[in-house]
Amino acid sequence: MEPLPLDDRGLAYGDGLFETVLLRDGQPLLWREHLARLQRGAERLGFTAPDADTLRACCAEAPAGLAVLKLIVTRGSGGRGYRPPDAPSPRLRWQLAAFAAQPERWRDGVRVRHCRLRLGRQPALAGIKHLNRLENVLARGEWQDDAIAEGLLSDSHGQLVEATCMNLFWSRQGRLETPRLAYCGVAGTLRDALLSKLAISEVEAGPEALLDAEAVWLGNSLQGVWPLVQLDAAEGACLRRWTLDAHHRLLQDAGHALLGYPAIR
Amino acid sequence: MEPLPLDDRGLAYGDGLFETVLLRDGQPLLWREHLARLQRGAERLGFTAPDADTLRACCAEAPAGLAVLKLIVTRGSGGRGYRPPDAPSPRLRWQLAAFAAQPERWRDGVRVRHCRLRLGRQPALAGIKHLNRLENVLARGEWQDDAIAEGLLSDSHGQLVEATCMNLFWSRQGRLETPRLAYCGVAGTLRDALLSKLAISEVEAGPEALLDAEAVWLGNSLQGVWPLVQLDAAEGACLRRWTLDAHHRLLQDAGHALLGYPAIR
Repeated sequence: MEPLPLDDRGLAYGDGLFETVLLRDGQPLLWREHLARLQRGAERLGFTAPDADTLRACCAEAPAGLAVLKLIVTRGSGGRGYRPPDAPSPRLRWQLAAFAAQPERWRDGVRVRHCRLRLGRQPALAGIKHLNRLENVLARGEWQDDAIAEGLLSDSHGQLVEATCMNLFWSRQGRLETPRLAYCGVAGTLRDALLSKLAISEVEAGPEALLDAEAVWLGNSLQGVWPLVQLDAAEGACLRRWTLDAHHRLLQDAGHALLGYPAIR
Repeated sequence: MEPLPLDDRGLAYGDGLFETVLLRDGQPLLWREHLARLQRGAERLGFTAPDADTLRACCAEAPAGLAVLKLIVTRGSGGRGYRPPDAPSPRLRWQLAAFAAQPERWRDGVRVRHCRLRLGRQPALAGIKHLNRLENVLARGEWQDDAIAEGLLSDSHGQLVEATCMNLFWSRQGRLETPRLAYCGVAGTLRDALLSKLAISEVEAGPEALLDAEAVWLGNSLQGVWPLVQLDAAEGACLRRWTLDAHHRLLQDAGHALLGYPAIR
């Protein structure tokens, strides 16, 4: 694979997209969802993503067992300054690495905090997995304590959006809900698949929704589904604890079935 | 210069900063302002920018006459996902190219349009020149007509911010004003220098401010200062025309003195 030229717009402006795909013995999981999101993103940004066969070929040299494929598709070089080239030549780069999930987080649940950073609202970029991720980097830089597994992000209007690299789900009075991602956030492929499999409502809700929730989960297509056992404020105080029970396994089972991960009992 | 490794966080997340510097016979213009902005940006993102001597050495092989130096400083590789590494090793890359200004735009002024895209508000990233520039790319992609020199950007609250790659200035009742950049936008080095040289107020103002303005200008450290002769709506209708007179040369003269560009008469 050739190194990326210094004038590539992916580096210059974050003008591109990425996907991180779970592979099991070289077979990509949620592949249809990853392809669809990449396609949606490319349409939104105004260039053409590589075709499915080209992308599938990136899995060819995957190691046995669990691995992660990172795909980066940029608009390529060219244009004058920010102006996109009239006929872009998108560039594909990829990396393969072995991957290990964290079964103890499936089983025991995780402790999570609210982030101080608020996501800006930009509907033109909401939902897609583009390369402009400084907000996530700054949010993830807010804590170093490894006992905190993830950080929850709200937007500038105080509405819940996601965690720094996972989507957020909860149940209130037996109803499954997840934040609507109309203004910001990444629509995860596991989220996409769960939405078409379960009755999950996309809602606008502030952090108080979590205090009323019977169960809260974080999930993505690499890690599977983590139930929350503790939620802390950005300042550190514990806001709520949950005791894991059968109800917490509901969304987890559905997610893990999609990824070939075990059901936890 | 070594190619950028594929795991560099500048490519992966836009986790870095850039500067584009005007050089005249190898001498950088507004160098102090460029260094200061890079330093501010690095502090905001939480890593250390290369020192002034290292950056100055990038000018060494500049061609004679006008040239542009593009500096890119990324957080380097490492970390786990979005999590920044505890001890980052920032990476510096640069490019030199000949540059030609556009004297006809200095002299005759420019026609400009409003963009449809609204900038999201993100105070954590406002003012610095980071690598997350998809908003600018999308905005610049809104028009192909070369008769339109630039596009004006307002934010999600309808406040004027900047143009896609230039800062915005105007005079109303003889007072010079420019948008305050507390929520979004890039604080240009020419803007910084003009703010310390002239009495320019940083204000919150909507697009209607321009309809009342005696003169409107766009400026940056490469192009110098362009007076507006026509402003169009995003839909194309002409909103306002200006006839250039001595008043229009005021801010232009000040900006051009800073860049060694001529005063226009």
